[in-house]
Amino acid sequence: MATTSQISKPAIVLLSGGLDSATVLAMAIRDGFRPFAMSFRYGQRHQSELDRANQIVATQNVVEHIIVDIDLGIFGGSALTDDRLVVPKGDTIEAIGKQIPITYVPARNTVFLSFALAWAEVVGARDIFIGVNALDYSGYPDCRPEYISAYERMANLATKVGAEYSSTGLGEPIRIRTPLIAMTKAEIIRTGLDLGVDYSLTFSCYDPVDGQFACGHCDACLLRLRGFEQNGIPDPTCYATS
Amino acid sequence: MATTSQISKPAIVLLSGGLDSATVLAMAIRDGFRPFAMSFRYGQRHQSELDRANQIVATQNVVEHIIVDIDLGIFGGSALTDDRLVVPKGDTIEAIGKQIPITYVPARNTVFLSFALAWAEVVGARDIFIGVNALDYSGYPDCRPEYISAYERMANLATKVGAEYSSTGLGEPIRIRTPLIAMTKAEIIRTGLDLGVDYSLTFSCYDPVDGQFACGHCDACLLRLRGFEQNGIPDPTCYATS
Repeated sequence: MATTSQISKPAIVLLSGGLDSATVLAMAIRDGFRPFAMSFRYGQRHQSELDRANQIVATQNVVEHIIVDIDLGIFGGSALTDDRLVVPKGDTIEAIGKQIPITYVPARNTVFLSFALAWAEVVGARDIFIGVNALDYSGYPDCRPEYISAYERMANLATKVGAEYSSTGLGEPIRIRTPLIAMTKAEIIRTGLDLGVDYSLTFSCYDPVDGQFACGHCDACLLRLRGFEQNGIPDPTCYATS
Repeated sequence: MATTSQISKPAIVLLSGGLDSATVLAMAIRDGFRPFAMSFRYGQRHQSELDRANQIVATQNVVEHIIVDIDLGIFGGSALTDDRLVVPKGDTIEAIGKQIPITYVPARNTVFLSFALAWAEVVGARDIFIGVNALDYSGYPDCRPEYISAYERMANLATKVGAEYSSTGLGEPIRIRTPLIAMTKAEIIRTGLDLGVDYSLTFSCYDPVDGQFACGHCDACLLRLRGFEQNGIPDPTCYATS
């Protein structure tokens, strides 16, 4: 819930164009933050998720939205940025998250949070929202609570505001906010629906067909489909018919 | 000193084209690492430092050198990336490092280390070298030992290799190596000279004259000049005559 001290505080919200981050944005606004949304063109296969991010921003009260250009693809090593690698399909939903899959992008959340931290310093934000989830997730190490907590500690030593807070006690520390971290996908969807999130604008698929239709078979699609099913409603995303 | 286990281990070395990182590169090679050098085009005023990085790489046995394009200037907030802000001059050398100056680039080392971490995962490196120094430095929070140590801890939770090491004990953890952190500028220069570093190739100035001559008056120039003076030798960098 919003508290008086949170009203109108600026916050950075990482926004991918997917279901989770769209929900986080709505939750940050609900809690009284003025959101600065940040997306990345990072060499991902499906750049259309950035169009979705733009569409989501257009439906919400966002102070500013920037898309940062970085090329994580120069390193290779992930099926999400390297066309030569194949996105796995056909796992059972129970197998998801048991080991780190090839869709893991090396250090991706660390890179994203670091840009968010830089922007937070400049706009005077102390709060950074990220839609990581450690329950219905793909098993990426940089989605776990212990990672987020270590990042937050580092961030408060890394920055001018954090260093000033540590030495003077004035102001507030940097906080990495992960409202989804312990929620199931079904709970996330329920929360977003209550906040009026238009999930038809969001896109989660790791390997879209023709660049725009969700494949329905990758980890992200399987988790999302089950989440809608558990809410007893159809997923409004366009899936490929195959 | 090199140990047997370090021989031929890959390492990422952050290389700015300045005196410190050129020395770190030579030290990493001395200690038996195979260096992957990483530089950034990050919106800095003096892009000529990247030419220096290229020249330094040409004199050393580097496996690969990549220059990553990122635009930290989109955020503003630093005199090193924002032409509207003025680089301070004429401080006494004793005043340097007493407070965080306007040349501080928000979260810069955090962003740099995060890209290095991504590359480390891809090439299988466990070691990341960065030339931070907490003695003769400008007072940036992200140069302090407590920051580096927090970053290292986070990095081991963030990554596939770190997560595997933590859960199985196999392999080795990620290490952020800061061989200069407790050295004076004079000691750094002495070490580099012993290792054959050609300091005429390096460039440290925050605000070069005509884009190529060191100003001689910013923090970086003052610290560097004193370091050479304490070694009893002239600084081979070209300074503006004013």
